[in-house]
Amino acid sequence: MDQGFKGMRVITSVSFMRRLSQKAGRERKTIGFVPTMGCLHEGHASLLRKSKKENDITVLSIFVNPKQFTPTEDFARYPRDFKKDELLAKNQKVDIIFHPSAEEIYPEGYLTAVEVEGLSDILCGKFRPGHFRGVTTVVLKLLNIVSPHRLYLGQKDAQQAVIIQKMVEDLNVPVKVKVLPTVREEDGLAMSSRNAYLTAQERQEARILFEALNLATTKILSGERDSKNIVGMIRDLIRSKTQTSRIDYIECVDARSLEPLTILSGDILIALAVWFGAARLIDNICVRLP
Amino acid sequence: MDQGFKGMRVITSVSFMRRLSQKAGRERKTIGFVPTMGCLHEGHASLLRKSKKENDITVLSIFVNPKQFTPTEDFARYPRDFKKDELLAKNQKVDIIFHPSAEEIYPEGYLTAVEVEGLSDILCGKFRPGHFRGVTTVVLKLLNIVSPHRLYLGQKDAQQAVIIQKMVEDLNVPVKVKVLPTVREEDGLAMSSRNAYLTAQERQEARILFEALNLATTKILSGERDSKNIVGMIRDLIRSKTQTSRIDYIECVDARSLEPLTILSGDILIALAVWFGAARLIDNICVRLP
Repeated sequence: MDQGFKGMRVITSVSFMRRLSQKAGRERKTIGFVPTMGCLHEGHASLLRKSKKENDITVLSIFVNPKQFTPTEDFARYPRDFKKDELLAKNQKVDIIFHPSAEEIYPEGYLTAVEVEGLSDILCGKFRPGHFRGVTTVVLKLLNIVSPHRLYLGQKDAQQAVIIQKMVEDLNVPVKVKVLPTVREEDGLAMSSRNAYLTAQERQEARILFEALNLATTKILSGERDSKNIVGMIRDLIRSKTQTSRIDYIECVDARSLEPLTILSGDILIALAVWFGAARLIDNICVRLP
Repeated sequence: MDQGFKGMRVITSVSFMRRLSQKAGRERKTIGFVPTMGCLHEGHASLLRKSKKENDITVLSIFVNPKQFTPTEDFARYPRDFKKDELLAKNQKVDIIFHPSAEEIYPEGYLTAVEVEGLSDILCGKFRPGHFRGVTTVVLKLLNIVSPHRLYLGQKDAQQAVIIQKMVEDLNVPVKVKVLPTVREEDGLAMSSRNAYLTAQERQEARILFEALNLATTKILSGERDSKNIVGMIRDLIRSKTQTSRIDYIECVDARSLEPLTILSGDILIALAVWFGAARLIDNICVRLP
């Protein structure tokens, strides 16, 4: 729907963003929404392209959300490059960048939290207590401010996507959630803002993640049904082929409920989080068994 | 806006209620919303009248929300009388009664909760752990389903009103919250569905709550500024004049932040919860000091 593109606006105020989304509603225009923490890459661009195709107006939010970093994490040094992000957004003909300050989103005296219980303290949640509570809280706020018809998320953050879909369903939020495939570098490394932390050696070693996930898929499709063997195979491969890695977890879970699988069946999500130096990388692959 | 009244509909399905509110949105009609647990009385009627005056469409929800009862509380025996409620609603020319089942609101596998931290574990929250979390969760769901422009609440549930206003503000929910004065019986007892639990003697004694709150107001307006003295005066009065009462709490707090006051100043909320037999009654009064 490019013909409607009238240039890009950058909005920093919640009330002004709200007014624009209400105006769009009155004019019966559909809004597609891509929430990000900035430092945009081709993965984000793929979400923006899809949103442009399916909606009259595309809103991109850039907000490094303090509530989703645990106290020991990389909030302060998380990569920020608004000028570069603006350029990528302009190239994708984004209609509105919503770029609020932390004070605009969490004014003094802020008290409210949203949590999807059970799903938020497993996998990454075990290693990042409070992380997903921060994610669901900010995403619900952004949905209320932007009032989109469609919300676009990346499959790279698989647990986040499952949790947000569950929140939207449970709280009856009137938005359609679309999860798009992970976009990868040529050697298979999943695109991520945190790849910027990798040294040359770590970057070289990090390709093992996708290799291991692919090998695991082949094993499963060849008949392996024991989750322990798959996890062990991935772990051994990462450990034997890298020097800078430290594994947080490797798990086989049900792709919808995220419940751990002992015997593999149905829609399987193989998810992992592995540190390379200062970068905690996550990746995953879905395997569907008939 | 009575001229638009075309008879009352009773809706039990979330998706149908959603469709009706979306239709109203497209037709640019405003929706006023009064959420209740049924067993309606003149307090609810006053909210409905206000909503009828200020909106094109008035939606009344009747849902005894299991999540806001603690395990030891009166969920099973909470008074329910849908036929009587329907009659009161019809008399007030309510456009839509939304009357879903518990399974419709909390389908199997439901996981999400909304909490206003800090405000939910004081006053009544101290005695009813999880209660306000249940309230905020269901109210946010109902707001998403009904999409009202205005939400009407009673001042009798003062803490609930403060918490819901805070949730709406914090989560950027696009609704205006209106809190209306407590409606009372002729002798001053605040109207409440739980008054139905009172025996004749308890009912007689329960009038002491409003008497004590009024006496406290007089004391404060005459210059008393020590919160302890006010609380002590109310406690002594209730204890000396009743045989069936058991006090949960009597507190003087800031009317907006609900923070306890030692020296009284500003907008003061005197709030109390007192059992009479099987009925846990709450009441409050606001005193504004210049």
